[in-house]
Amino acid sequence: MTAAPMIEFWRGGMLESFHSGHAVVFGPDGIEAAWGDPEAVIFPRSSVKMIQALPLVESGAADAAGLSERQLAFACASHSGAALHRDAAAEWLSGLGMHEEDLRCGVHMPWDAEEKTRLVCSHEAPCQLHNNCSGKHVGFLTLNRHLRGGSEYVEVTHPLQQTIKTVFEEVTDVTSPGFGIDGCSAPNFATTVTGLARAMQLFAAANPEGSTRERAAARLTQAMATFPEMVANDGRACTELMRAMGGKVAVKTGAEAVYIAILPEQKRGIALKIVDGATRAAEAAITALLIRQGVLDRNHPTVETWLTGAQKNWRGIVTGEIRLAPGFG
Amino acid sequence: MTAAPMIEFWRGGMLESFHSGHAVVFGPDGIEAAWGDPEAVIFPRSSVKMIQALPLVESGAADAAGLSERQLAFACASHSGAALHRDAAAEWLSGLGMHEEDLRCGVHMPWDAEEKTRLVCSHEAPCQLHNNCSGKHVGFLTLNRHLRGGSEYVEVTHPLQQTIKTVFEEVTDVTSPGFGIDGCSAPNFATTVTGLARAMQLFAAANPEGSTRERAAARLTQAMATFPEMVANDGRACTELMRAMGGKVAVKTGAEAVYIAILPEQKRGIALKIVDGATRAAEAAITALLIRQGVLDRNHPTVETWLTGAQKNWRGIVTGEIRLAPGFG
Repeated sequence: MTAAPMIEFWRGGMLESFHSGHAVVFGPDGIEAAWGDPEAVIFPRSSVKMIQALPLVESGAADAAGLSERQLAFACASHSGAALHRDAAAEWLSGLGMHEEDLRCGVHMPWDAEEKTRLVCSHEAPCQLHNNCSGKHVGFLTLNRHLRGGSEYVEVTHPLQQTIKTVFEEVTDVTSPGFGIDGCSAPNFATTVTGLARAMQLFAAANPEGSTRERAAARLTQAMATFPEMVANDGRACTELMRAMGGKVAVKTGAEAVYIAILPEQKRGIALKIVDGATRAAEAAITALLIRQGVLDRNHPTVETWLTGAQKNWRGIVTGEIRLAPGFG
Repeated sequence: MTAAPMIEFWRGGMLESFHSGHAVVFGPDGIEAAWGDPEAVIFPRSSVKMIQALPLVESGAADAAGLSERQLAFACASHSGAALHRDAAAEWLSGLGMHEEDLRCGVHMPWDAEEKTRLVCSHEAPCQLHNNCSGKHVGFLTLNRHLRGGSEYVEVTHPLQQTIKTVFEEVTDVTSPGFGIDGCSAPNFATTVTGLARAMQLFAAANPEGSTRERAAARLTQAMATFPEMVANDGRACTELMRAMGGKVAVKTGAEAVYIAILPEQKRGIALKIVDGATRAAEAAITALLIRQGVLDRNHPTVETWLTGAQKNWRGIVTGEIRLAPGFG
């Protein structure tokens, strides 16, 4: 089954560009709504950081290290490398008695404008603390110490990654057909859109007083929704959408236009992938699905940014708008 | 007819994202090759700057103002706002006895890293000279003085824009179905992919000693191919591809993933549009078509950047590659 048209960009009353994708809304009894091909195989990329953090919590490693809910949110982040993120990574590492050099996520210039300006204008190089995945990687190091694994923790054969793979296949209920190397050098296991949505439904339905896994999943969801600034940054979709929903829903983006949502009150999970990898479309599509599910107010100001606001040019002149493709949302 | 798959992004041996589009190769006798829907209506955006500059040259306004070939290339640019572009815009304006405030392109931070750093670290604001379309706009002002039009030269009813519309419909041989407002506030007239390719064929086949229009078209093509650094910037696809082809071919990108090529030796024009608007795919697709046409050496180092090189992550680890979709290129 082919991808379904989802998001359209209009200019001057004519369709200029459009994006197609796959999406699944998964409820307690299974698939409730789907667009495109629910069985399409995708790389979930950073949308599954809460799954990668699940063994950190359910193993007891998080409690043994005395991690706060804020740190758990940070373990699920694709953050902007702003000062608060850089410092959070540094402090957590310090608490482990470890150093920036122990990370294996690599270095990139932070996305946060203020921190980037500070670095550039002071001729200071960015470091691995700025990497958008540094929170996940400090989480990896925390679990790795618990597992007593070797230092090269991103190798796919490493006990840490094999532990994550096992958990990933359990919560998706799909045997992963393979893996790719992510931007941060960790393996990223492929799954289906349905598998990803099913895993998010498991997080949504997790009883905070249930099994070890359920307690861990509920705790991670609540941590993300409670500390949205740790998951992305001011002005970014994940942070602003979670703020707009008042801590009741967790959402997470992944590179190449993946997005998930965890809706605890409805016990529903959502997963979507735009097949061309465009983040602008994934942001618009998840916004539309959150409105559809009744958890996001379509009149909330942040909705304008991702979906309903006019597209403007450098002089502030309206040039067009985003529309939902017929049959989507 | 639907868009044809063109460019694929693979990771870990699996397809992660892909891009579809429309493309036409137009020769002396008409369409020679096509993918997707040749009659798809598109906004050509900045890919048609050489058409927008055509009346500047054929009216005699360019010669009356004593414009150099380098300035003609600049009139066709989506430049990076580097120092050489900023200065070129300032000098040309000064030659007209006009000022930055006479432009109507708007202000955005330049894309050029060095100039951006200079501005940010000196707390200096960018100005309209940095706008990627400032060359086109100074060209507009030059023709506008010749036409004795009013100061609001980007209004669609302004004599300047109506002159451009007439020329645009003549060279595309398509009645434009409408227009949109571009990022730089100028009207951008819609056409078909075939219309755009036909216009590029007209440029390609233009006799440098032929009619007024032919001489103007040949001169603009040669200006772009001779001064590629004025059309984009070091390291950008238009500039590097033109350099790799040794001044024999002109290429130009447009926002939302449009690309054109003018091949004078073959008297052929190429136009393509990726329907999702992804520049990465338009760059890969035009590279593939230039190789297909035999004007770009597939072993030239710049081809790795846009098409054949391995995709790597922050630690330099190979994560995947770009592939042509079956049936394309």
